[in-house]
Amino acid sequence: MVQQERAERTRQSLMRAAAEAFAEDGFVSTTLSTISKRAGVSNGALHFHFANKHVLAQAVEAAAVATLRRITHDAEQRQDSALQRLVDATHGLLGSLERDVVVRAGFELTGTAPRREQAADLYREWQRWTRRVLHTAQQQGELADGVSPAQACAAVVAATVGFEVLGAKDPTWVSRRTLGQYWELMLPRLAAPEHLPALAPHGSVPDRNGHHHPHRTNRSSCFGA
Amino acid sequence: MVQQERAERTRQSLMRAAAEAFAEDGFVSTTLSTISKRAGVSNGALHFHFANKHVLAQAVEAAAVATLRRITHDAEQRQDSALQRLVDATHGLLGSLERDVVVRAGFELTGTAPRREQAADLYREWQRWTRRVLHTAQQQGELADGVSPAQACAAVVAATVGFEVLGAKDPTWVSRRTLGQYWELMLPRLAAPEHLPALAPHGSVPDRNGHHHPHRTNRSSCFGA
Repeated sequence: MVQQERAERTRQSLMRAAAEAFAEDGFVSTTLSTISKRAGVSNGALHFHFANKHVLAQAVEAAAVATLRRITHDAEQRQDSALQRLVDATHGLLGSLERDVVVRAGFELTGTAPRREQAADLYREWQRWTRRVLHTAQQQGELADGVSPAQACAAVVAATVGFEVLGAKDPTWVSRRTLGQYWELMLPRLAAPEHLPALAPHGSVPDRNGHHHPHRTNRSSCFGA
Repeated sequence: MVQQERAERTRQSLMRAAAEAFAEDGFVSTTLSTISKRAGVSNGALHFHFANKHVLAQAVEAAAVATLRRITHDAEQRQDSALQRLVDATHGLLGSLERDVVVRAGFELTGTAPRREQAADLYREWQRWTRRVLHTAQQQGELADGVSPAQACAAVVAATVGFEVLGAKDPTWVSRRTLGQYWELMLPRLAAPEHLPALAPHGSVPDRNGHHHPHRTNRSSCFGA
């Protein structure tokens, strides 16, 4: 039992080390010995857990998919309003991108040649959920007249993917503040007027630290001087 | 003179071959001999033009930057309305992503580890221009009350980057139709009501073929079944 726990801990630290290396240097440039060194584990131990780099990448992607599913599931449990679910899920997703290198690496692997083709498609998963929740919003009368779920889905998915990609270089893009301002812009267009006052663009739950992220140095050209 | 022309043509076909390889396989996986083979040129000729792969990547990025600047410059020449300039420039940009592998590769190199850090920053260039044009829109009274240029800039830049990244896997995302629907959603929120009727969400100029792109098979989860 103790041995199993130790094995699981080693497995986790290998995945974390791999995620860090993939996120920083990309999949192709990362070598297995970089990963084992980062994790403080022997090459033999690495090979015991993961046959090769692709298997490691698949494990990182699967963990990122699991996190994404937990985020959308949590948003569904907490909220009756479909639009608020969507707002909360985007905050959960961008928060996890800021906090969790495994999620960041999962998206990096999804969006990047040459792994793009075989990768577990985090983008596709996110699109499907977003489209579903926007259909529910329409059925519940939450969408403004003339706004279609497909159109809203495309706008929101494109923006969240953009936040993710831009956030890899400048974390301002995945901050709660930036995303809250995004929803302040979007909700008056997407929501039926009678639903708008109840919606919280900065999310209906405080983030993990119980407060909004402190204001960062804004290096992005959209925000900065 | 004839020899110079031939040299320039070889240089162009090497850049094109490199862009194709970078866009498909990523920078790291691409070898110089793949590029020379694709271009139908000897390794020696390649080395005559480009000392190494980084120099080739820089040339591809510089060409993509030049195209981006031509697109924004054209939009500025053609339009008095700042918001229409922005709409037209996004159509120009996504059209060039669909059509021109050099632009596609330029963005791929900008957005991707490990080149991300040293790459000519196409995203930054695009952000600066977008912010400037939205400031002009504000000064000209084109923006709706309560919409800030920074907030609109972040939303538009994130969405266009997202369209670009998602478009690498599924061209529906960079189609004129998808972008037109995006602006149909956004303009009623961004534009002052008196300016809205004059704005053309699908762009004020026809695309290069003189018509909108034919409807494609929609594989994207936002659009498809």
